[in-house]
Amino acid sequence: MFEFRLEATQGSARAGTLTLPHGPVKTPAFMPVGTHAVVRGLSAGDVRRTGAQIILGNTYHLHLRPGEHVVQSMGGLHRFTTWSGPMLTDSGGFQVFSLEGLRRIEEDGVEFQSHIDGTLRMLTPERVMEIQWQLGADVAMAFDHVVPGQASFDTASEGMQRTLRWLDRCKAKHEELSASHGAAQQTLWPIIQGGVHDELRLRSLEGTLHRGPWTGVAIGGLSVGEPKPVLHRVLELLHPVLPVGTPRYLMGVGFPPDLLEGIARGIDLFDCVAATRNGRHGTAWLETGRLNVKGAALKGSVEPLDPACDCETCTTYPRGYLRHLFVVEDILGLRLISIHNIRFLVRLGEQARAHILDGTFDRWSREWLGRYHAGRN
Amino acid sequence: MFEFRLEATQGSARAGTLTLPHGPVKTPAFMPVGTHAVVRGLSAGDVRRTGAQIILGNTYHLHLRPGEHVVQSMGGLHRFTTWSGPMLTDSGGFQVFSLEGLRRIEEDGVEFQSHIDGTLRMLTPERVMEIQWQLGADVAMAFDHVVPGQASFDTASEGMQRTLRWLDRCKAKHEELSASHGAAQQTLWPIIQGGVHDELRLRSLEGTLHRGPWTGVAIGGLSVGEPKPVLHRVLELLHPVLPVGTPRYLMGVGFPPDLLEGIARGIDLFDCVAATRNGRHGTAWLETGRLNVKGAALKGSVEPLDPACDCETCTTYPRGYLRHLFVVEDILGLRLISIHNIRFLVRLGEQARAHILDGTFDRWSREWLGRYHAGRN
Repeated sequence: MFEFRLEATQGSARAGTLTLPHGPVKTPAFMPVGTHAVVRGLSAGDVRRTGAQIILGNTYHLHLRPGEHVVQSMGGLHRFTTWSGPMLTDSGGFQVFSLEGLRRIEEDGVEFQSHIDGTLRMLTPERVMEIQWQLGADVAMAFDHVVPGQASFDTASEGMQRTLRWLDRCKAKHEELSASHGAAQQTLWPIIQGGVHDELRLRSLEGTLHRGPWTGVAIGGLSVGEPKPVLHRVLELLHPVLPVGTPRYLMGVGFPPDLLEGIARGIDLFDCVAATRNGRHGTAWLETGRLNVKGAALKGSVEPLDPACDCETCTTYPRGYLRHLFVVEDILGLRLISIHNIRFLVRLGEQARAHILDGTFDRWSREWLGRYHAGRN
Repeated sequence: MFEFRLEATQGSARAGTLTLPHGPVKTPAFMPVGTHAVVRGLSAGDVRRTGAQIILGNTYHLHLRPGEHVVQSMGGLHRFTTWSGPMLTDSGGFQVFSLEGLRRIEEDGVEFQSHIDGTLRMLTPERVMEIQWQLGADVAMAFDHVVPGQASFDTASEGMQRTLRWLDRCKAKHEELSASHGAAQQTLWPIIQGGVHDELRLRSLEGTLHRGPWTGVAIGGLSVGEPKPVLHRVLELLHPVLPVGTPRYLMGVGFPPDLLEGIARGIDLFDCVAATRNGRHGTAWLETGRLNVKGAALKGSVEPLDPACDCETCTTYPRGYLRHLFVVEDILGLRLISIHNIRFLVRLGEQARAHILDGTFDRWSREWLGRYHAGRN
């Protein structure tokens, strides 16, 4: 349980297998986001057929609706959603720190106003551990103090140091919950913070590892507006210091090129809502770049959306029909493009893994990125 | 091709098999409505898994978007939608006559303003035959003059007589199209009109049969606001005059009890948007009546939506999760309740058929209706 086996590396890129209570996850892998215990618009079967191995839920949203006690009384997130594979819950840190003006940060935790009914609520490291324990995902995330993307050294330092202090409390509470329930059903992963400041990132990582060992380490507070070269620099900075035998999860990333850039810098796991958000807006990802499914060019086309793709959408429907669904505003269109976009990222992970295993990742990745960026954007 | 084999009767209720170019249809049967070449929110696979044998498309809507030439250039409705089973297209009569104020009725046809872009368009019996031929469904419907549910004798008489004159023109055009294309790929069904006036209904039927033979006969202009006993009276009036060996299609009906009441009066085929419309609004049909899926009573429930149902929704998801999907407004909820409601009507047809075949329809139907009406409404 909670094991990670590194199977191959090429440069900084890694291929491995993470074993969780609800099954294995072959890495590198993209994890679809099911904010409200549903990957927007998709059934558990739809998600399974994309080849996704692990999905996310969100503590902030599930705490508000339906409430962790409801999920627990129904047998936990797996029974609730009928998703039987591995799951991870985000801690809600990112969400409460995004509620500008609606929240008050104290050392104890964050007081915030529900965006649903306006009620005043409090999340503390201990509370967040309890909620995630009740939700019952395989992986719980530590409660972190997230600062804006361009935060100053002092602000980023304050958030990073509080994240470390909160990590102590999360760890203590999670150990208490695990001990009182016998078998270890859930593991806790810490989150590295520190903004765009190298010194803070290294101190965050050092302080985090000092509090370990961990079965996984997440990198948070990136992909929040900073330039891509900064994101890449931070990943390159952390890579040699991160323990080789621990999976690394880059939170909130990414778009297709971000996955390959992250994998090239040693990242194993990714999550992002862009696949489903773009799907809902009719933007499909292809190897040649993005495609607007509503575009007049697709009218009457009998071609598949992406001839290279093996998803339900691309193997079943002609482009002209997908366009028609968006024109007549039928929700089937949103579903079908979301399915394709998720499969696109899942398959990108599978392809990267295969190329790492046979030592061709660098060349393949370079060519892939060249083709994608040269395409229609 | 276009054969109907009557396999059993009990009272006026009938069980048979209709053979169409794209496959057989065991009757009695409910036909889901795919107005825009999509059963609202459902994939062709979703619809297939409900056990539906035949689906509808709508000439009016498909003429406007994407246009019959686009559908034809993509290989017809079957290739366009990926639905490989039997299909029927409505003639657009009901739609253009519902465009109060936006249309002008002449003997030649109906001039109307598109509700999409305001352009002026004309549908004539000949044009409607051409459009349906290009769409390529197994069954095309004649262009009929539909009058309001409570139309006077004179108004209903005018509509009925025009429907007969238009039927001559539809038949001539359809025979011309069939002859010029060799093999018979599509059949034409006439529509009985005459409002709630017995004399007119009988004259409509007589005039229609006189112009036959037909491979199927539809009864239109009902379920448009008239009281249920009137609907039942008209069906009882027509039953002994309708040819035994021809399938009868009651257009725009119905809700679950309407299906059983129609079957008891000799109807073989039904269509209605209520299954998906109710599904979108979170109303599920159960054998004990309707259920509001958003209701607080479902919160936390691990029970299936309908323990008696074998649909994807009922065999997979707990009630508490279905309610949650409506609370967080995820479109998966609309899909799952639509799937259940369609399966509910399809299964009702299957059950009725089995009971007609073994001679227990009357008792079963009476008990079923008693249970449904006694339930929560």
